[in-house]
Amino acid sequence: MRQLSVGVVGCGYWGPNLIRNFYENERVDLKYVCDLVPEKLAKLERRYPTVKTTVNYQDLLSDPELDAIVIATPVRTHFRLAQQALSANKHVLVEKPMCGSSAECAQLVALADERGLTLMVDHTFAYHGAVRTIKGAIERGELGEILYFDSVRINLGLFQSDVNVIWDLAPHDLSIMDYLLGQTPKTVHATGSCHAGNGIEDIAYITLNFDNNLIAHFNVSWLSPVKVRQMLIGGTKKMIAYDDLTPMEKIRIYDKGISISEPQNVDSSYVNSVSYRIGDMYSPVYDLTEALKVEVSHFVDCVLNGQKPITDGRSGLRIVRIMEAANLSLKTGQPQEIPTDGVASPIANQSFAPLETRSK
Amino acid sequence: MRQLSVGVVGCGYWGPNLIRNFYENERVDLKYVCDLVPEKLAKLERRYPTVKTTVNYQDLLSDPELDAIVIATPVRTHFRLAQQALSANKHVLVEKPMCGSSAECAQLVALADERGLTLMVDHTFAYHGAVRTIKGAIERGELGEILYFDSVRINLGLFQSDVNVIWDLAPHDLSIMDYLLGQTPKTVHATGSCHAGNGIEDIAYITLNFDNNLIAHFNVSWLSPVKVRQMLIGGTKKMIAYDDLTPMEKIRIYDKGISISEPQNVDSSYVNSVSYRIGDMYSPVYDLTEALKVEVSHFVDCVLNGQKPITDGRSGLRIVRIMEAANLSLKTGQPQEIPTDGVASPIANQSFAPLETRSK
Amino acid sequence: MRQLSVGVVGCGYWGPNLIRNFYENERVDLKYVCDLVPEKLAKLERRYPTVKTTVNYQDLLSDPELDAIVIATPVRTHFRLAQQALSANKHVLVEKPMCGSSAECAQLVALADERGLTLMVDHTFAYHGAVRTIKGAIERGELGEILYFDSVRINLGLFQSDVNVIWDLAPHDLSIMDYLLGQTPKTVHATGSCHAGNGIEDIAYITLNFDNNLIAHFNVSWLSPVKVRQMLIGGTKKMIAYDDLTPMEKIRIYDKGISISEPQNVDSSYVNSVSYRIGDMYSPVYDLTEALKVEVSHFVDCVLNGQKPITDGRSGLRIVRIMEAANLSLKTGQPQEIPTDGVASPIANQSFAPLETRSK
Amino acid sequence: MRQLSVGVVGCGYWGPNLIRNFYENERVDLKYVCDLVPEKLAKLERRYPTVKTTVNYQDLLSDPELDAIVIATPVRTHFRLAQQALSANKHVLVEKPMCGSSAECAQLVALADERGLTLMVDHTFAYHGAVRTIKGAIERGELGEILYFDSVRINLGLFQSDVNVIWDLAPHDLSIMDYLLGQTPKTVHATGSCHAGNGIEDIAYITLNFDNNLIAHFNVSWLSPVKVRQMLIGGTKKMIAYDDLTPMEKIRIYDKGISISEPQNVDSSYVNSVSYRIGDMYSPVYDLTEALKVEVSHFVDCVLNGQKPITDGRSGLRIVRIMEAANLSLKTGQPQEIPTDGVASPIANQSFAPLETRSK
Repeated sequence: MRQLSVGVVGCGYWGPNLIRNFYENERVDLKYVCDLVPEKLAKLERRYPTVKTTVNYQDLLSDPELDAIVIATPVRTHFRLAQQALSANKHVLVEKPMCGSSAECAQLVALADERGLTLMVDHTFAYHGAVRTIKGAIERGELGEILYFDSVRINLGLFQSDVNVIWDLAPHDLSIMDYLLGQTPKTVHATGSCHAGNGIEDIAYITLNFDNNLIAHFNVSWLSPVKVRQMLIGGTKKMIAYDDLTPMEKIRIYDKGISISEPQNVDSSYVNSVSYRIGDMYSPVYDLTEALKVEVSHFVDCVLNGQKPITDGRSGLRIVRIMEAANLSLKTGQPQEIPTDGVASPIANQSFAPLETRSK
Repeated sequence: MRQLSVGVVGCGYWGPNLIRNFYENERVDLKYVCDLVPEKLAKLERRYPTVKTTVNYQDLLSDPELDAIVIATPVRTHFRLAQQALSANKHVLVEKPMCGSSAECAQLVALADERGLTLMVDHTFAYHGAVRTIKGAIERGELGEILYFDSVRINLGLFQSDVNVIWDLAPHDLSIMDYLLGQTPKTVHATGSCHAGNGIEDIAYITLNFDNNLIAHFNVSWLSPVKVRQMLIGGTKKMIAYDDLTPMEKIRIYDKGISISEPQNVDSSYVNSVSYRIGDMYSPVYDLTEALKVEVSHFVDCVLNGQKPITDGRSGLRIVRIMEAANLSLKTGQPQEIPTDGVASPIANQSFAPLETRSK
Repeated sequence: MRQLSVGVVGCGYWGPNLIRNFYENERVDLKYVCDLVPEKLAKLERRYPTVKTTVNYQDLLSDPELDAIVIATPVRTHFRLAQQALSANKHVLVEKPMCGSSAECAQLVALADERGLTLMVDHTFAYHGAVRTIKGAIERGELGEILYFDSVRINLGLFQSDVNVIWDLAPHDLSIMDYLLGQTPKTVHATGSCHAGNGIEDIAYITLNFDNNLIAHFNVSWLSPVKVRQMLIGGTKKMIAYDDLTPMEKIRIYDKGISISEPQNVDSSYVNSVSYRIGDMYSPVYDLTEALKVEVSHFVDCVLNGQKPITDGRSGLRIVRIMEAANLSLKTGQPQEIPTDGVASPIANQSFAPLETRSK
Repeated sequence: MRQLSVGVVGCGYWGPNLIRNFYENERVDLKYVCDLVPEKLAKLERRYPTVKTTVNYQDLLSDPELDAIVIATPVRTHFRLAQQALSANKHVLVEKPMCGSSAECAQLVALADERGLTLMVDHTFAYHGAVRTIKGAIERGELGEILYFDSVRINLGLFQSDVNVIWDLAPHDLSIMDYLLGQTPKTVHATGSCHAGNGIEDIAYITLNFDNNLIAHFNVSWLSPVKVRQMLIGGTKKMIAYDDLTPMEKIRIYDKGISISEPQNVDSSYVNSVSYRIGDMYSPVYDLTEALKVEVSHFVDCVLNGQKPITDGRSGLRIVRIMEAANLSLKTGQPQEIPTDGVASPIANQSFAPLETRSK
């Protein structure tokens, strides 16, 4: 089997994780690592002596043997670098958030479609064993109809100087929601506050409203003394609590739910009556493989087999649209509609088996 | 010392706790228990054979020896019962929320002022040892300037058929915030959802904005598989995490905070730079006395000594104003201003020592 | 249905809980409360005005209408008071530990047998919903063969001045083990230490060895800064973790276990090979009724229907025998055999349904 | 500054961690990696292309430029490999447990002394930031006199086929204790059980008795469904709980303790009276540097500066003596004395500053 020839651009905070995982994937030949800062390249050279390092992105674009480019640079450069890569007929994996605007995302989607190239966004959590296990429970209908999605991702800092806490943290949770629910929200309300006097919000709360009374809420903060990564997903049949930081039983599936009886004449007004059910909890085991390893393998599959990525450009576009609208709501104090069109339809239930595929 | 003669009306969910605590207070003579349901009274008779039971509220109003009436009936009856009690020259302790509307609250406040009677609202948490200890830390300036207040109170519900989850759960957290911060919010945004088809929200998120970028957020739900009662209070110097359900270390005070340096010319734009500090955590011990016992003792002090209650009618009014505006925001989808006037000014830092006073 | 006439002797730490539960049981007429300290009686009179109080135990013994006596006095008085009660033809419920010596326990068992009276020991935990649910899982064979039982009960203690930490805390855990496993240990090793210079151990570790390599271990301490009540019960098929202090999921049943393959010739020595299995965890719901309420109801059933108590005198004897041997091991530094005979055979699997029985 | 030339032998479970840390230390030239299995070497070659790999240990011994050898092979080979290395004038860092017998340990200590070589044992936890922080609290006298040390290290195991759970897990906890307390136990009791029919205990409990009523207890198991790494250290003034698996606040220092008053005549017998004190808890921050990185740097310091290692050969000998005696106790059922002599005196309080030293 031939190896996929890959170059990575951007060796900052996340880049080295991508580099390590592409380096260790046996179906990949990691050919280039590119960054503007020579010191960062020197460090990587010592670690990966067989990989070429360059400060010149053009080296990657102009190498006809290179199949794919992985972009892990600051957000404001994503569009330009990805556009160049696609135009040079390279498959692309781009760090989240996909771009700084939904217009840019849409352009990249169109360009990749036109050229028949793989365009994938690094929404890593969609490849986490716990999230995939939750996806399985939802797909099997274990939860019944989904009633709400509630997410908390808070900690003490890294304060960013160019983007607010929504752009920094919310893509994780929005992409998990997008993957798990496969539904598109209609409106967004966002509130928040900036305490540094620089106009960059460090705390934000986002509410998404869907059809059918489904509600999603996201709490993101750089100002919490405790680190929390928790989700609650409530259905009519079962409810899930997912705590990414607990050492054991990250996923807990509760046999709890509500049932709504027929309207009754109560106190001379017709109301529905709600009853709830409390049963056992179970905590499933799940695949402990590093999420990024699964993702890299899935990217290789998609490029080699022409498969559509779980977290394709359209999912990146959907997430950026929500964040744009959320930021507009934050500035105006008004709820905002989230645009939808045929381009970025949500994922249907898909049989995702990147690990199995890998072993072929 | 003479005993305070007290009657309690309402023997539903919370009433029996009030009855027990008034019964056990040595400065109180619990004279009456009143309810419309004779079976409930029969049960209490067996337990407290020395107390008179009656289905007729008039018995309490017309007894010239009775000093005070405690109202623990459904919210919609609070105004009428409290108005009658004050008009009959009885001091009043009323269950939360104080009334179903802020107009009613204001009327009661005026009536109590006019008659020189004690009007207190049963915001129990203000008397909880943990909350009082947090209050002490804030008053001493340990936290510096308060940046945010974040509260979560969720569980698998008792679904109410007449009020939504805001009226049911939020008074607890709003009254804790009111007591701890002593500041009045300017605007409120609320979002939420109803899943029972009866128009009564079972999940709600409330954001309050204050001056000085202080932000408060409240998550209340009847639909969570896990029971959570958590608060985060962030200051420039220290931050507090308060978990009411953990068996140990409910209060954790983190020596963590942020400092904002002078604006600097960074990348040719002037921005403030934020740094943060991570130090030790400490968890103070606190008074474990039952909150309701402390509150009952404080009510007795207030009546006997003409002291102003911590949770007086004005605090009840402030809480109801916030909830009214929150519900309006929920219905309209628009942020709402919260009315303020001279009547309900927030509490200043006050030297609260109900336990010490009791021992006189 | 006629009521059981009951007297309680001893109003110290635990007595009031027994008094409250007997008072509230509708099949009981709580006739007497007895204590040597008149002030304690005065307090209870105010609370339970219909109950006779007395400092004279003889009043209970000589009342021909009294059916049963509940003994909640210091351990050293249990034997004498129970012997007098049984001799006066009263059924007896006695606080744990049953007596200060196994010889005394055996005498009481023989006396109760002779007279056909109910003799029950207040091993409260055997009536706790969580423990009964674990018992169910073990009886159904869910755990397979039991491999070990490990218990930790530590806190910053009430130091006793007359008994050591084994006599104070271990009866809880030994009685849970006795109830759950239904097996009798052969030998005991105990170690410990005394830090107060009074010869009374405040930390102790007890190991019990059974047939079939079953091992049980108990860690009891008055000197721990954290309060812990945890048990692990390991079987070949499943394993249980029981944490009595966690607010949720006190019982966790792990689908984990080991299997031992046939001996193999490894490195020229014959050894068995061990493999282990890691599967899901589930946490069952259980009856939340107060354990003492269930126990009191069970006692009433036993007296009225001549039923054999779950925690009969023989179980009390078994627990005291283990503690006697453990203390001897502690003093001598040597392992001790635990005497067994026909008198105190362990409980077989019995269909325990005190709650169901109660509703008849 | 000249670099230390180092070779590592053994590339199994732990070896790769040592290799990575020696490779990344700038004062080290990692020259050799040695293992009997060529496949393991091949894997490492790809990762560290500049390092020589060999299946022949003699290559390391005979290289006159090589300064030090790191031994991470199975325990039974430690003695022979370390003896050869010291005889070839190489400094040695050997994996724990140091050797399979105390006699072998003593021989290595003598040999290293004779040759003036550094002999250090890889008791990694002594270099963990949390453990060093606890050491600091003890050295400053914060805890007062130490009363007890209690350790739990349990999980669902890697069952070993050649050594029991004591040899596998207890060295971690014994070395932490040895480092923290600096005292030598007098006697050991051990109990345990084997469930695999191969004579290898999978559960064991060890009690150590010291002078002055200090007691230490160790619970080690391969058969627990939950993974636990917890320690309690109690002093007369303060007490510490250390949980290595909790994501936050691993170290909690409780202002709790006991005080023993003068003997008093209570109930006509003279007893000491114990009172206890409950105050705040604090959780200090600590150095998060990887323990093995600190240890490797300390080893380099010791070799280059002739400094005595924190975890020198004598500490290795002390740990093995305790384990030998514990295993004898396990087999005989009798408590065993632990030999002491001038060779292996416990560490006195030493000013340990490996990180500071490193920056020279």
